[in-house]
Amino acid sequence: MRNFKITIEYDGTNYFGWQRQNNEKRLPSVQGALEKVLEKIFCKKVSVIASGRTDTGVHALGQFASFKVDTNIPASNILRALNTYLPDSIVVKELKEVPLSFNARFNAKRKWYRYSIKTSKLPSVFSRHYAVYYPYKLNIRLMKEAGRIIGGRHNFSAIFSRWDKRKMREIKKIDIKNSKEFIYIDIVGNGFLYKMVRRIAGVLVDVGRKKINIEDVKRLISGKKIESEAQTAPARGLCLMKVWY
Amino acid sequence: MRNFKITIEYDGTNYFGWQRQNNEKRLPSVQGALEKVLEKIFCKKVSVIASGRTDTGVHALGQFASFKVDTNIPASNILRALNTYLPDSIVVKELKEVPLSFNARFNAKRKWYRYSIKTSKLPSVFSRHYAVYYPYKLNIRLMKEAGRIIGGRHNFSAIFSRWDKRKMREIKKIDIKNSKEFIYIDIVGNGFLYKMVRRIAGVLVDVGRKKINIEDVKRLISGKKIESEAQTAPARGLCLMKVWY
Repeated sequence: MRNFKITIEYDGTNYFGWQRQNNEKRLPSVQGALEKVLEKIFCKKVSVIASGRTDTGVHALGQFASFKVDTNIPASNILRALNTYLPDSIVVKELKEVPLSFNARFNAKRKWYRYSIKTSKLPSVFSRHYAVYYPYKLNIRLMKEAGRIIGGRHNFSAIFSRWDKRKMREIKKIDIKNSKEFIYIDIVGNGFLYKMVRRIAGVLVDVGRKKINIEDVKRLISGKKIESEAQTAPARGLCLMKVWY
Repeated sequence: MRNFKITIEYDGTNYFGWQRQNNEKRLPSVQGALEKVLEKIFCKKVSVIASGRTDTGVHALGQFASFKVDTNIPASNILRALNTYLPDSIVVKELKEVPLSFNARFNAKRKWYRYSIKTSKLPSVFSRHYAVYYPYKLNIRLMKEAGRIIGGRHNFSAIFSRWDKRKMREIKKIDIKNSKEFIYIDIVGNGFLYKMVRRIAGVLVDVGRKKINIEDVKRLISGKKIESEAQTAPARGLCLMKVWY
């Protein structure tokens, strides 16, 4: 048995997320597409374990996954075969043999997500699947300040609609970059709750729009509810950039 | 009657080109989509004249068009209504009232097309609809030299498969730009033959690949056939950038 670690780039637009669905024909998934090709290459079923799931419509520049298979095929040939058979919305950028103990999910130490916002006067048709168009003025200084407050170890219950006992998570860093026509929210953490990055992006946009203020953000991360409820930012703006092991 | 000039950006991926087709349901066109929305706004049929057609799958960052209509609606409201009803693959970036004599096709003086080639080791899923992935090494210096030779006024018969009497055209400029992972071929001219830009891109790629040499290019633009026949480069790499009036 050998174990392989892969780095995957995908356009999530037409996938129902990472995780394999019961009905792959109607609800194609990235995992399903990969496993279908692996079965073709190895003539047997191979399970792929990702660093974590991504939701419907979420993209990846650097998703990581691993799979075990009993084979003599050299790694470089497996990589070539994968990219030959995969649809053009998925590319395996790297494939490496790793010790059998490696597990892409449990060994993931840190993840970097990017949320992209298009801020020009008019939307661009070319970024419409990869960034959220937001034509209102956003105050970057306030967003950065809120980002610094959200960074760190907190109970994130209050940014979700439902309360939960254990929503303690640590965010290593929130960086907000402002390029010509885009705002990028970069979030690095070692574990994320379901829809957490998109909820945080929603909070930061509300701060930038001055719908809520810095005091509200402080209340939120201390676990207190605030009046205005931030939206979950749309999936298409989110991209998993990198996973550290 | 009033006359309006519009600047249009579109993602040509899912359109059967600019020109309205007989069966818009099965073969949607950019012109068809625009005219449908204009009919909705003005409650009457409105014909849109573009600077020129673009083929199936070809994009535009700056296509120009004009249409005449008898209306009192202010220009800014027409622009807003257009972008409200148009699909998200088409954006009207500007709308200006122009003299009745203006015709977007006949008054077009010069057009700039860009052909984009992705040259990295692996394709990128995010540029797959907007650039052609070409993993072989291309010699940029030779491509630039060939570009300088193709620029100017020539009979372009020989770059097409079929000979034709009047294929005299003037190319104002061919610029080849080499960014990190892309090569851009920028071609400016005052009139282009059907598929001419994609044929020229095909010739330049053959030069870069050293399948043909500079002497071959000289023969081609003097109207002589050469042995190797350049491919018509795929439509998805082509984008109409700007039209001058």
